[in-house]
Amino acid sequence: MININSGFLELEANYLFADIERKVAEYRDRNPDRKVISLGIGDVTRPLAPAVVEALHRAVDEMGSAAGFHGYGPYGGYDFLRDAIVEYDYRARGMDIGPDEIFVSDGAKSDVANFQELFSVESIVAVTDPVYPVYVDSNVLAGRAGHKVDGRWSRIVYLPCTPANNFVPSFPEKRPDMIYICSPNNPTGSALRKADLQAWVDYARAEGSVILYDSAYEAFIRDPEVPHSIYECEGARDVAVEFRSFSKTAGFTGLRCAYVVVPKTLKIGDGKGGKIALNPCWYRRQCTKYNGCPYIVQRAAAATYTENGRREVRDIIRGYQDNADLLASAMRNLGLEVFGGVNAPYLWVKTGMDSWKFFDIMLEQAALVCTPGVGFGKSGEGFARLTAFGSPEDTQEAIRRMGELAKTRAL
Amino acid sequence: MININSGFLELEANYLFADIERKVAEYRDRNPDRKVISLGIGDVTRPLAPAVVEALHRAVDEMGSAAGFHGYGPYGGYDFLRDAIVEYDYRARGMDIGPDEIFVSDGAKSDVANFQELFSVESIVAVTDPVYPVYVDSNVLAGRAGHKVDGRWSRIVYLPCTPANNFVPSFPEKRPDMIYICSPNNPTGSALRKADLQAWVDYARAEGSVILYDSAYEAFIRDPEVPHSIYECEGARDVAVEFRSFSKTAGFTGLRCAYVVVPKTLKIGDGKGGKIALNPCWYRRQCTKYNGCPYIVQRAAAATYTENGRREVRDIIRGYQDNADLLASAMRNLGLEVFGGVNAPYLWVKTGMDSWKFFDIMLEQAALVCTPGVGFGKSGEGFARLTAFGSPEDTQEAIRRMGELAKTRAL
Repeated sequence: MININSGFLELEANYLFADIERKVAEYRDRNPDRKVISLGIGDVTRPLAPAVVEALHRAVDEMGSAAGFHGYGPYGGYDFLRDAIVEYDYRARGMDIGPDEIFVSDGAKSDVANFQELFSVESIVAVTDPVYPVYVDSNVLAGRAGHKVDGRWSRIVYLPCTPANNFVPSFPEKRPDMIYICSPNNPTGSALRKADLQAWVDYARAEGSVILYDSAYEAFIRDPEVPHSIYECEGARDVAVEFRSFSKTAGFTGLRCAYVVVPKTLKIGDGKGGKIALNPCWYRRQCTKYNGCPYIVQRAAAATYTENGRREVRDIIRGYQDNADLLASAMRNLGLEVFGGVNAPYLWVKTGMDSWKFFDIMLEQAALVCTPGVGFGKSGEGFARLTAFGSPEDTQEAIRRMGELAKTRAL
Repeated sequence: MININSGFLELEANYLFADIERKVAEYRDRNPDRKVISLGIGDVTRPLAPAVVEALHRAVDEMGSAAGFHGYGPYGGYDFLRDAIVEYDYRARGMDIGPDEIFVSDGAKSDVANFQELFSVESIVAVTDPVYPVYVDSNVLAGRAGHKVDGRWSRIVYLPCTPANNFVPSFPEKRPDMIYICSPNNPTGSALRKADLQAWVDYARAEGSVILYDSAYEAFIRDPEVPHSIYECEGARDVAVEFRSFSKTAGFTGLRCAYVVVPKTLKIGDGKGGKIALNPCWYRRQCTKYNGCPYIVQRAAAATYTENGRREVRDIIRGYQDNADLLASAMRNLGLEVFGGVNAPYLWVKTGMDSWKFFDIMLEQAALVCTPGVGFGKSGEGFARLTAFGSPEDTQEAIRRMGELAKTRAL
């Protein structure tokens, strides 16, 4: 009889956010009249920007006409979008990235989960701890993680990020092949400064590793010392792939558009003493296993780079940043220590108790949903992630409930 | 230094359709005034149906309003679409499939390429020959194919489909774990009758294999003896996964929507003597590595099931079927033997010469693009695939050029 990929037996039965969803559904059943406010899953709430809506309508009309219809698109994305990405996200900041180094997709989650396919199954993976679960789980399913022992995978190298090291991971004892770095970080809300990121680029160059740089929250950076792209670092074109998304930047979580940058200068071993460029391999992978992001969605993404689009998107981001500031104050008023939230839409709150216990108190007593830090890894125990993606009204109401909660002394 | 997944070294450098694209681009450079007509890649040309366009506009407006905005959707797809699929594609034909057995996605290519992840890397893969390259290439990258020897992969079981067996694959000598069957077939345009498909279901049940049934061209079936779904066969719920798409059914190649059916009763070995259901494993895979099909696209797909949508989509399909009939006549007038085209949008033409030579003659002398049969496998040598997806005008012009070509006696 045919057998399952044993990775599915190794993984826990449920995905973190599915667990939360289930707990919230149970709470709702018991409390049908209480409005639950989610500060949990990182989903946006503001409607699409008018420039995006307009571009979508226009593209839909094209698709409804014989002359304007678009079938399968180019595997790497339409030129109009790749050119805009290059122009505004890279050249405008002085980085040398070409359109054929950009691969448009349906989401950074898919990209970041799929990109590991390019590497040998023997490759050693390093992740920060806490970490976005997708980096780990995709490698578990690919057979790179080994076995789970005491909450950690035997073949994965963990790089703890805690207040003690100011959330800057140190170089590990064991040399990794693939290094996942997310900055601004999910879940801690911290962001690497240029010197710290440069040190990791230098490390990867010295060790022959590849950095998988997840920059999905780049639009939230306020500190001028925090780089928007890893390619601001010298030599990064030779060792780093960068993942970007329109999800958090422009509210595309329900529209689905992202891109990966795979520099043509990035080469790895072919296992036979030679080298092979990753750019054509990723192209081949996408040709074989993907068929492109919808034309209308690529038009929508391109609209975020127009003058109106850029202004509208900036305003949306600013609204979320205001939420982050308000939530951070409210949490501090509860006597809790708060990290992140400055260059990221995430607050990383020291709970002073077990993460899930904090989650339960927030849910049961204030109908607020957060994400238990331990769901992101061992070093996340004792923390909770709050997101700033609520509407202004929901954020205000959440803050009011936190005030009530303070009076109960439950936290 | 980090090493590449050796599958990328094993695969040929270029994907079949990319090769064709390159040849066509070269021809265009040399003949800028000559209009090239593609009968090659299976891309549709008719605009989206009015019901679909209307649904898209409505959904876009929702996404532009705070009240109607949709962020991340349910991992398996929205209920409104899963319910419509169940109702019209399954229950209306007497099949017992539930909404939680449907997983909506961005395309059948992604699904069919990704589904192999669920199985042990040791699993033996069987494919028909000729075959849609994605089944093979995705397994090469996953490490299941072995090495390429004389145009065939050492660990893959090939099931020849030729005029000699009426394109019905025979059971192989070596027992396979994963059996890819595409019916109506790409590229041969043939379709399995119910008795033949039932025999394969019985075989899979007896052997403990899983059938990966690609039914992307189901809408083109005209023969009442050809099943629209594998679940019309007794016992298929225990051994088969079915891939469906809106691409060819409703012209969604540029819009991207498809679905997989994973019956809850389908169980495979856990490698430890027990069994495990595939449905929750696929759910877990999608939660981990995918974030859903855009809300607006799912609304568009649902519109194909409305009364207007169904009528409009049927009319589009009928137009392509008319093309298929016209092209088949024209090819026969050229003295060529033609298979398929009755229950599928593909004609499988016996070229009487090397496939690529036929391709070159068609391109150089008539500016017509076909797909060389050998690109789909060894048994495809001496054939070419023609698609019926052109506009009526292009199809007429293609037929006219074939008439001219007949006079040159080049074929």
